[in-house]
Amino acid sequence: MSKPFVFEKPIGMRDTLPPLYETRRNLRERMMNEIRLWGYELIQTPTLEYYDTVGEKSAILDRQLFKLLDMDGQTLVLRPDMTAPIARVISSTMKQIPYPIRLAYHSSVFRAQQREGGRPAEFEQVGVELIGDGTTSADAEVIALMISALKEAGLTDFKIAIGHIGVIDELFKASLRQEDERKELRRYLYEKNYVGYLQLIRKLSLRADDSNRLKELLHLRGNREVLQKAEQIVSTEKGQKALKELGHLLDVLDVHGVKDYITFDFTLISHMHYYTGIVFEGYTSGFGFPIASGGRYDQLLKEFGRSGDAIGFGVHLDDLTEALNVIQDDQVEVCIIYSKEKRNQAIKMAEEKRKEGKKTVLQEFSSIGNVERFASRFQHVIYVVGEKGGGDTHG
Amino acid sequence: MSKPFVFEKPIGMRDTLPPLYETRRNLRERMMNEIRLWGYELIQTPTLEYYDTVGEKSAILDRQLFKLLDMDGQTLVLRPDMTAPIARVISSTMKQIPYPIRLAYHSSVFRAQQREGGRPAEFEQVGVELIGDGTTSADAEVIALMISALKEAGLTDFKIAIGHIGVIDELFKASLRQEDERKELRRYLYEKNYVGYLQLIRKLSLRADDSNRLKELLHLRGNREVLQKAEQIVSTEKGQKALKELGHLLDVLDVHGVKDYITFDFTLISHMHYYTGIVFEGYTSGFGFPIASGGRYDQLLKEFGRSGDAIGFGVHLDDLTEALNVIQDDQVEVCIIYSKEKRNQAIKMAEEKRKEGKKTVLQEFSSIGNVERFASRFQHVIYVVGEKGGGDTHG
Repeated sequence: MSKPFVFEKPIGMRDTLPPLYETRRNLRERMMNEIRLWGYELIQTPTLEYYDTVGEKSAILDRQLFKLLDMDGQTLVLRPDMTAPIARVISSTMKQIPYPIRLAYHSSVFRAQQREGGRPAEFEQVGVELIGDGTTSADAEVIALMISALKEAGLTDFKIAIGHIGVIDELFKASLRQEDERKELRRYLYEKNYVGYLQLIRKLSLRADDSNRLKELLHLRGNREVLQKAEQIVSTEKGQKALKELGHLLDVLDVHGVKDYITFDFTLISHMHYYTGIVFEGYTSGFGFPIASGGRYDQLLKEFGRSGDAIGFGVHLDDLTEALNVIQDDQVEVCIIYSKEKRNQAIKMAEEKRKEGKKTVLQEFSSIGNVERFASRFQHVIYVVGEKGGGDTHG
Repeated sequence: MSKPFVFEKPIGMRDTLPPLYETRRNLRERMMNEIRLWGYELIQTPTLEYYDTVGEKSAILDRQLFKLLDMDGQTLVLRPDMTAPIARVISSTMKQIPYPIRLAYHSSVFRAQQREGGRPAEFEQVGVELIGDGTTSADAEVIALMISALKEAGLTDFKIAIGHIGVIDELFKASLRQEDERKELRRYLYEKNYVGYLQLIRKLSLRADDSNRLKELLHLRGNREVLQKAEQIVSTEKGQKALKELGHLLDVLDVHGVKDYITFDFTLISHMHYYTGIVFEGYTSGFGFPIASGGRYDQLLKEFGRSGDAIGFGVHLDDLTEALNVIQDDQVEVCIIYSKEKRNQAIKMAEEKRKEGKKTVLQEFSSIGNVERFASRFQHVIYVVGEKGGGDTHG
């Protein structure tokens, strides 16, 4: 294998240069301010976790995990998501804090990529977790906050698709006998491969009404009226209860003033296997990936030793930045270029500009290669240059 | 080997909970604002780099590197510092930007720890690099900015010790014949093991004047007068030139108004082998580790393909936070606790509070276990509770 060139980066790894950095920072801050206003408190967890604790429970495919061995031979992973680490914190460091707990984060997460993929292997998520609250009020709060944060970031044209794991589960249980059939159909939904989904249904030679209901699922997308349609095809008690909850959720979201952003989509399947109730994804026009997603996970916490209902969301900050397609050019305002004998004067001038809150570069002339190219990076350039043979250092 | 408990973290890895998180964020923001005011622009580099590029050049001991293999069998490292990654960026992604370049960052860096060590394996550095400028003006700027940033963070009682690699090198070259003798003495200085240093000098049976000069080095600490003392014992041309530069540096730092923070210390040796000129460390009373450090590295850049003189510093944010010993308790201001039938009213009330800029938690009563304990976390608690059998949801 050949050595990488001295300037190469690992696959999926990227540098973030000043204009993009500032753009992303600005979006992050605007979202975090909103999240703080809703009473969520920020935490940070380590980049490395034990594979046996967080890695296994994180629901990210094993081949997507970055793994390494520590000095004791234990397998570590670079955190592939933030939900499992926060579940660990709730059961350990924050064990004494009474429920409900509202936490937020902005953190890099890591997913190993194939050379061809083109997706980043390290990307930043801005998110929240509301832990110890299983009510519809909590569902609505988290979705309303996600919408509010996206609006604060400047996103206007977007929709939140809401589905429910319980509805699909009940339909599949009633219509399909084998767990592996259910699993395969779920995978088609997750991949949004509806042709494959329909082909498999045909192949399975089911009873006509079962087959029809499964096909009908693909049309369960839209506004409130979809809930009534769904009631026709998901007849179990549990399924009916889930649908009633969703109707109620829409009412509460209406009070939050965000109903117009909502659409139901019962084909929605998350790759996060720990979700137990509603799941949701945020889409904006012209962008192929969901920029935000989340769901309810009432069974994960107890795996870490402290049971609790929970719901959360994560915004994919890099995708959001790309979708917004606005670059913040945060140019440095002033550059003072001085010749050596005028240094004292230049230093004092820079001090004053900075006191006025102006971003000010102070640069000795002798180190600049091409003055024109160098100076072009600044809004204003001030030359503090002495006369030849002058030498008055205090101007 | 036994499995780790479900809530364990890898050695040296830590969770940062809300009060500490906010304290650290506050310090980081204050320092970054100052750094921005001086015209430095922020960048972010990936957590993972190739061992063959950045890992090898980073000057961190090999056993302190976290290493892993990617899918192609290349060795990756978690970045152990930020200087080498920025050198890579300068030679690649930023190749077209003319010198001088001013960059800043706040990033986690990683150093594997022994179980006994107790030092963090992941910690945050706030720092700058000024690239393409070899002048004393640049040296002074970076040191003055470091002092300014530390002051902005609220640190008052601190000193910056400045040394010079060239002075020690010249003295050692003149007094010691063997490179391994020099290396061993350097190691003693780095470990601040002055007893070992003196014992080795005695053992080497040097000429009396060589031995005396080497011993005298330990006393080269203090203000400007130390430069004169140093001139007596470092007699080579290069050594005298380095000392003259340091005198000049002190003059410029005086113009920057930070002379009183400076002390010279010619025993200062950095473990970063790439330093070529001045090196410096920031100390505050009652704290055993340097909270900030930096130096000039004029030879590192060209290893990545684009030559350039450079100087930078890094502040150890976690140590600074500990040294300052002030915890910011950023309590959520308002909590609205409501019963279900008053939800609409409560949502509207929360909306108003947030519009006023008040951090406001909205909590349905039914999900709270112990109301008293839960409520104690907030500055003000408002109860919006309906009468039994009431049911007016709009209050």
